[in-house]
Amino acid sequence: MNKLNKWMGNKLCELNVTEAMDVSDGFTRLGYTKEELSAHHQFIKIASELGLTNYQDQAGNQWAVWEIDKNAPTIAVGSHLDTVYNGGGYDGVVGVLCALAAIKMLKDKQFTPGKNIAVICFISEESARFGVSTIGSKALVGELEKTDLATVTDSEGITIKQAVEDMGLTWEDIEQAELGKDDLEQFVELHIEQGKQLQENNANIGIVEGIARPIRLIVKVSGMANHTGTTPMNQRQDAFVAIAPLVSFVNEEALKINREQATPLVATVSTAHVKPNAMNIIPSEVELGIDIRSVDDDLKKKLAENIKTYCLEMEKKYHVAVTVTNLVDNHSIRLDETTKQKLIDVCETLGLTTRVMDSGAGHDVMNMASKWPCGLIFIPCLDGISHQPDEFTATENLVNGAKVLENYLQTETQTE
Amino acid sequence: MNKLNKWMGNKLCELNVTEAMDVSDGFTRLGYTKEELSAHHQFIKIASELGLTNYQDQAGNQWAVWEIDKNAPTIAVGSHLDTVYNGGGYDGVVGVLCALAAIKMLKDKQFTPGKNIAVICFISEESARFGVSTIGSKALVGELEKTDLATVTDSEGITIKQAVEDMGLTWEDIEQAELGKDDLEQFVELHIEQGKQLQENNANIGIVEGIARPIRLIVKVSGMANHTGTTPMNQRQDAFVAIAPLVSFVNEEALKINREQATPLVATVSTAHVKPNAMNIIPSEVELGIDIRSVDDDLKKKLAENIKTYCLEMEKKYHVAVTVTNLVDNHSIRLDETTKQKLIDVCETLGLTTRVMDSGAGHDVMNMASKWPCGLIFIPCLDGISHQPDEFTATENLVNGAKVLENYLQTETQTE
Repeated sequence: MNKLNKWMGNKLCELNVTEAMDVSDGFTRLGYTKEELSAHHQFIKIASELGLTNYQDQAGNQWAVWEIDKNAPTIAVGSHLDTVYNGGGYDGVVGVLCALAAIKMLKDKQFTPGKNIAVICFISEESARFGVSTIGSKALVGELEKTDLATVTDSEGITIKQAVEDMGLTWEDIEQAELGKDDLEQFVELHIEQGKQLQENNANIGIVEGIARPIRLIVKVSGMANHTGTTPMNQRQDAFVAIAPLVSFVNEEALKINREQATPLVATVSTAHVKPNAMNIIPSEVELGIDIRSVDDDLKKKLAENIKTYCLEMEKKYHVAVTVTNLVDNHSIRLDETTKQKLIDVCETLGLTTRVMDSGAGHDVMNMASKWPCGLIFIPCLDGISHQPDEFTATENLVNGAKVLENYLQTETQTE
Repeated sequence: MNKLNKWMGNKLCELNVTEAMDVSDGFTRLGYTKEELSAHHQFIKIASELGLTNYQDQAGNQWAVWEIDKNAPTIAVGSHLDTVYNGGGYDGVVGVLCALAAIKMLKDKQFTPGKNIAVICFISEESARFGVSTIGSKALVGELEKTDLATVTDSEGITIKQAVEDMGLTWEDIEQAELGKDDLEQFVELHIEQGKQLQENNANIGIVEGIARPIRLIVKVSGMANHTGTTPMNQRQDAFVAIAPLVSFVNEEALKINREQATPLVATVSTAHVKPNAMNIIPSEVELGIDIRSVDDDLKKKLAENIKTYCLEMEKKYHVAVTVTNLVDNHSIRLDETTKQKLIDVCETLGLTTRVMDSGAGHDVMNMASKWPCGLIFIPCLDGISHQPDEFTATENLVNGAKVLENYLQTETQTE
């Protein structure tokens, strides 16, 4: 097993295009950039070493296939290699790494599967660059709304279309990446937990049954700009004064819901833009972005409604104009019960402790689940830290994850 | 008088380098830019038409002098032509315009002054570009701290040094713009009020006795970034949740001080920067900028102290790190009593109603006052609106202002 540990440690660095994982600024491999492409090239290299067949689909997803028979079903595993700005080297990468390691183990022991096995390296999973997440898996299930995306740009004004074409892809063809129902049989993703439940409960593996997808609100407040020095306190329409209490309100309401309800909910005022943002001018406009998640869609909706009501009160109290827009309203996802049970069984066979849980973060598997039976496995990450340079999971967890996938793939593709 | 109205209306447009004042995006003439320089060129043109001698000093201030005798004292009037981003066309401009109009009236009636009269067009009065205000007048009184400024840049990374040299000036020589005590006898600035006191009290002219200069604080909060979907509400160190209540605190404390004290105070949380400002990441850092003004320095200091105490409470309550830095701590200014009285007398002579008041905004005159007896005159502006495209004052007010300066200059430079 020591040899596998070493192989996984080496390949973890290779997929991160780094000599060592301990990098103070973390990794920045945004979707549809040459940095993501470099990681994909490492994936192709490792897959080739394992004797897999590589190809890229029209959306830019990289595929590595252990092809047994064109007419046999295909079981897919995988995750993504892109990161947020200054993110960690485990989010996404471990799912690709464990999938490759599982295939390596199966090949090393001369196992011959009765189905094709595909490793998918989804493109542009994070929303960090374009504010849109899981682009690659959306394309696979035909949920990529190209017309809506045409006007979306990154912080430097580059459109998605431009970014896609800079990768050598054709924007017009991107929707052709969509797969038919019969092209895959099932899909399993492995990911770091990005939370502390496994660590705190001493569980080796998380088996996910539900994925909380967000309601995202944009709250826009318009007051009146004026000179900070010459406008008396009682003659102001300060947009920031009017809406700042909403930050506490969202936090306190979410805490209250968690006290009163069994199903967890999280809510965050995560973005703020103040205009004109000049020392001597009263803020005339503030825009806040709010992210609300729970596997219980009704809880999310109720909080969103309470936020809207609160905004109306602030509007009256401070003589400003407030609009609340639903940026995103995604219903939460239940994963396949049968797959879940199979994964639990595999962990039991391997003597690994499990925790059945929900995911507070979205993953490519949530799109795949709309078309195929799907499973999601978590491995622990240190202190739940993620999307940061400090993100870490021990090699032991990587090996556990690889073994779960190996055992699962073997069970599912066994010929007799 | 109709002819003067027309002349002032024309020159107002000329100084704003525009065909008409009603421009939807307002005027953007930041300090030390070619836009400011264009306005200076208009100033030179008008001054030349009036037979004045033009020159530029080492800091970039433009001078137009009615020179009578090199050995006679010089009385100066003027203001600035730079603006904030999308500012109005009256802030600064009217002080230059009324000074030129006053000279025109004196010349039209064949008056010969017994002293030299200078119109100063101060460079880069607004802090909009570099976060530093009244650069030109600071240079004149030797308060420009060139060493501190060397590292200051605008939003595009251009240093002040670079900007100064792009104007054809020499950075090394900028301090040579400093004047000796005897180079001027006195200085009077005219400006729009940027407040509503004159309008609400039906006064034609404001006579300013005190200028409230700011204490500016930067509050920096460090929490912990983490995934918004996977981090339970009770395990967060959200920097924005921790510091948002400060916005209300500052507003309420300022309102309270105004209820309890005779001297007004204004306080504004005018800037905010949230990091990483991404929808799916809990804010790890928030920086707020606070502007506090009153002519009573003790009131300012007391509020700043209360803010610091409040920040310590938030630090403990939300398990974040908070630092409060004094960005600016300027003592407020009392203008010359004699000049004030003379200006009141002039207004009485002219039959103009006056209001003796303080200024909540800083002006070039506050620097000039450290070296010479100084006065500051306000003319009303519509609804107190300023630093915006809507900024407006009627021609009648411009004519009143010009007449006050004309009468004042005549009285002060009368030969017998």
